[in-house]
Amino acid sequence: MSTRPSRALETFPNPNPGRDYEIRLEAPEFTCLCPKTGQPDFATLRVRYVPDQYCVELKSLKLYLWSFRDEGAFHEAVTNRILDDLVAALAPRRMSVEADFLVRGGIHTVVEVHHP
Amino acid sequence: MSTRPSRALETFPNPNPGRDYEIRLEAPEFTCLCPKTGQPDFATLRVRYVPDQYCVELKSLKLYLWSFRDEGAFHEAVTNRILDDLVAALAPRRMSVEADFLVRGGIHTVVEVHHP
Amino acid sequence: MSTRPSRALETFPNPNPGRDYEIRLEAPEFTCLCPKTGQPDFATLRVRYVPDQYCVELKSLKLYLWSFRDEGAFHEAVTNRILDDLVAALAPRRMSVEADFLVRGGIHTVVEVHHP
Amino acid sequence: MSTRPSRALETFPNPNPGRDYEIRLEAPEFTCLCPKTGQPDFATLRVRYVPDQYCVELKSLKLYLWSFRDEGAFHEAVTNRILDDLVAALAPRRMSVEADFLVRGGIHTVVEVHHP
Amino acid sequence: MSTRPSRALETFPNPNPGRDYEIRLEAPEFTCLCPKTGQPDFATLRVRYVPDQYCVELKSLKLYLWSFRDEGAFHEAVTNRILDDLVAALAPRRMSVEADFLVRGGIHTVVEVHHP
Amino acid sequence: MSTRPSRALETFPNPNPGRDYEIRLEAPEFTCLCPKTGQPDFATLRVRYVPDQYCVELKSLKLYLWSFRDEGAFHEAVTNRILDDLVAALAPRRMSVEADFLVRGGIHTVVEVHHP
Amino acid sequence: MSTRPSRALETFPNPNPGRDYEIRLEAPEFTCLCPKTGQPDFATLRVRYVPDQYCVELKSLKLYLWSFRDEGAFHEAVTNRILDDLVAALAPRRMSVEADFLVRGGIHTVVEVHHP
Amino acid sequence: MSTRPSRALETFPNPNPGRDYEIRLEAPEFTCLCPKTGQPDFATLRVRYVPDQYCVELKSLKLYLWSFRDEGAFHEAVTNRILDDLVAALAPRRMSVEADFLVRGGIHTVVEVHHP
Amino acid sequence: MSTRPSRALETFPNPNPGRDYEIRLEAPEFTCLCPKTGQPDFATLRVRYVPDQYCVELKSLKLYLWSFRDEGAFHEAVTNRILDDLVAALAPRRMSVEADFLVRGGIHTVVEVHHP
Amino acid sequence: MSTRPSRALETFPNPNPGRDYEIRLEAPEFTCLCPKTGQPDFATLRVRYVPDQYCVELKSLKLYLWSFRDEGAFHEAVTNRILDDLVAALAPRRMSVEADFLVRGGIHTVVEVHHP
Repeated sequence: MSTRPSRALETFPNPNPGRDYEIRLEAPEFTCLCPKTGQPDFATLRVRYVPDQYCVELKSLKLYLWSFRDEGAFHEAVTNRILDDLVAALAPRRMSVEADFLVRGGIHTVVEVHHP
Repeated sequence: MSTRPSRALETFPNPNPGRDYEIRLEAPEFTCLCPKTGQPDFATLRVRYVPDQYCVELKSLKLYLWSFRDEGAFHEAVTNRILDDLVAALAPRRMSVEADFLVRGGIHTVVEVHHP
Repeated sequence: MSTRPSRALETFPNPNPGRDYEIRLEAPEFTCLCPKTGQPDFATLRVRYVPDQYCVELKSLKLYLWSFRDEGAFHEAVTNRILDDLVAALAPRRMSVEADFLVRGGIHTVVEVHHP
Repeated sequence: MSTRPSRALETFPNPNPGRDYEIRLEAPEFTCLCPKTGQPDFATLRVRYVPDQYCVELKSLKLYLWSFRDEGAFHEAVTNRILDDLVAALAPRRMSVEADFLVRGGIHTVVEVHHP
Repeated sequence: MSTRPSRALETFPNPNPGRDYEIRLEAPEFTCLCPKTGQPDFATLRVRYVPDQYCVELKSLKLYLWSFRDEGAFHEAVTNRILDDLVAALAPRRMSVEADFLVRGGIHTVVEVHHP
Repeated sequence: MSTRPSRALETFPNPNPGRDYEIRLEAPEFTCLCPKTGQPDFATLRVRYVPDQYCVELKSLKLYLWSFRDEGAFHEAVTNRILDDLVAALAPRRMSVEADFLVRGGIHTVVEVHHP
Repeated sequence: MSTRPSRALETFPNPNPGRDYEIRLEAPEFTCLCPKTGQPDFATLRVRYVPDQYCVELKSLKLYLWSFRDEGAFHEAVTNRILDDLVAALAPRRMSVEADFLVRGGIHTVVEVHHP
Repeated sequence: MSTRPSRALETFPNPNPGRDYEIRLEAPEFTCLCPKTGQPDFATLRVRYVPDQYCVELKSLKLYLWSFRDEGAFHEAVTNRILDDLVAALAPRRMSVEADFLVRGGIHTVVEVHHP
Repeated sequence: MSTRPSRALETFPNPNPGRDYEIRLEAPEFTCLCPKTGQPDFATLRVRYVPDQYCVELKSLKLYLWSFRDEGAFHEAVTNRILDDLVAALAPRRMSVEADFLVRGGIHTVVEVHHP
Repeated sequence: MSTRPSRALETFPNPNPGRDYEIRLEAPEFTCLCPKTGQPDFATLRVRYVPDQYCVELKSLKLYLWSFRDEGAFHEAVTNRILDDLVAALAPRRMSVEADFLVRGGIHTVVEVHHP
């Protein structure tokens, strides 16, 4: 059970590229590790985007998010990284990624990143 | 019980075409099939529009939504399709359709489409 | 108990006509009849306005809303009608009326009308 | 539109009379008149029962509740009356009726009646 | 405007004395004065009772509650007092009074009294 | 896409038959047809049980629930039917099934059935 | 206990007059009398302001609000009056007062006033 | 500002010792220190009791709770301690204390203690 | 970062073994793997117990829960396992463990286990 | 346990200085003392900022907030002070601090400060 799931994001053609419209995805099952302590962190990820030529395939997104499970990642860096990977795969017209982390040390953190 | 309900959207004349006003409809009973797996998908549909000469008749809208029950439909395509059909029938001044799908593979999806 | 309550809207002078301010009224007890089936419809009415020279007297508003109890009225028409009557009685600087109807045929309807 | 709907409650045979089970119905659209002032009262009705030989048919229940629309009725009396009528029609093993009235004079009233 | 409203609780005959049933009343508009500081206290009152021969008339209950507006009253004493007065007037089969006071000194207080 | 999914409920051995414990399952995606009108009905199903020798396998439960999609079924009958089928497959120590149907004709219905 | 509390609003110097910032105050304990019927009215007051040279001292605000307890006051007039008094005492850069009154005659009223 | 507030709990005579009734107090402002790390802990305290001869005076309860601000205290021990102190001061017929602590290390803790 | 955290549960002496009282712990950060698919599962764990001679030390509980992160575990088995481990370590007077898993295949599962 | 925790805010380099993005932090565990009465005040702090070259390290922020525990601080002044300290340490592109204080004297206060 130790293989890292594929980080490749699959896409399918946007069925309506002639129109700007928004897709919102919420994944409450994101977990990675704190690079300082090695302890697990948990977050709900929210992605909003206006597709151009491609939409993200949900199963590959699920595997992509799962691939962070055994990796050390700072809150700010991993949120930017996910946006960068999604932008690289989809070239969306607009996109935002919000990572809403569970409380650590009495502080609740949310990071929200936009493209462009 | 296997006949597909009519997809024809009926209309009635807007009682106040001289004024821009908004009608909001929420239908929590939309279901179609996943084109990949054949499994049922479920969504709440939300329609907002500013009517021009016509308003949509509610019973025909109910039958229209019901007509997708046995059809395969991707999230993004079916939301755009419903907007297109409503725009064709009503020629509204403005309209949006939001389809809020139940969780699949740990991911909750909402698609929101606007006209014009 | 069969007399229709008065539809006359009473007013009182705005105590601060020199200033734009907003009054918001919510009446969860509106009922009329469906003109097609004769069956009762139920709604919560929300009125927001910026008064000019007059404010609406609450008791007369209550009687006014009650006067629709035995009348057939389509959702869109009755919401526009209530705005028209209130505008005629109050000549407000701005006003909106929102009628939030209980579910019919699995569809929840809200109509929102603005003046001017 | 002035005919009083039928007060006759229709029933259908309980499909599982060999087992005690509970049916809960909630109707947010009950209205009658205050016998003192003639003004409308509004309530949400909640019926819970364990059927014996009969279940209540929903459409006839809807018409039954509608039949109070033009009648004067005290909160306590009408709740007991509805329980009595339902017990007479269904002879249930157990039943309760709860009527949850909107605020009058700053006081919110609920009446809950049980059989037996 | 300084007359104390009547403290007399009026009643009407219970329309169903042959059956035990419950009446629940909630009044969010109770206010009295703190006997130590003279400052106003505010509470929501909740009364639940099973009537015997009499039910409380709502308008007289409203006036009764209003009669405490200018009186000094400790939380515990006033809640017991209201139960005593209601029991004296109604002789109910069972009754409870709950007074839910707004925060004072960072502490939120609820007093709940039962008869018998 | 018209094949009815299998109605066979699969099971796996209870990992702790020596202890009474409860499993609660909630499936918000149940739909069947109204036997009178042929129109779709929608419900959330809640199953609670104390397993004896067997637990229900979730994927087969999903297919089982899906198998009602094209069948006419009265609220009361289908809830009893689902309990009977689950009891036949699992022989649980205790079980309840609750079906919480969306509003029809202004009335919201819940049916709750227990075994034994 | 019949002395009217002081209506004088005390202030203290704004600790950061060089910066625009917002202070929001919510007081759920406002009560006055209806000038028509003499009956008590209850409201939650919400004040938002950007201070200039002065901030309002909370204890004096509490006494100020308390001073309306025995006074007749229409909803619209008293909300404007409170804004006027606070503006006179504080000369804020911006201020709003919202009074959210409990239901009267089935209608819930909110009045919201802004300066300038 | 470093003096520890008085830990003495003051009481006043129960105005109705002839009747069992319940007083519920909620104080969301409890803080003490973790004896291991010296870091602050925060809790909401809930006290429910049936008074015998004495009720607790609220201001002294507030000071009593405040007295733990600079003290090290384990969750379980401090909750038992507060119950013991209140029982010693009030000799109530029944009492419970619930301490609802904010999350530490991803775990939310509640301790609930009863007397007798 | 691949070492499995210690599964040893540490305890400390119950500060009040002379009294039955309840400790409730909620940990929203439990994750393990599905033994069939290898995919991650997520749950909120709730533990309630009445300690006898020992209480569980929170940090060791956190590490214990974390130790399941890379292990395959069926819902029913892992919940029973956690109860068994906690009972073995603490010998509590009473204990329950509830595992509330995120939706899989449209079905939300909760497993609740009690000792004794 | 009486040493004041360090007020020094530590930072780490922004992993994505090339992009404007937002970090939101919520700390429900802020407490200081009222400079007039010496009594404790409690607040939830919310910080939102767009980092430039530095992000705030969470543990140092926790210690920084803790450092106010034994200090007298007016609501308005301490909120401005926290913003000033964070701006001095981080030089963010944009920042706001909101302090949401628990009720004092029946009034709930929120102070919200922005930079620039």
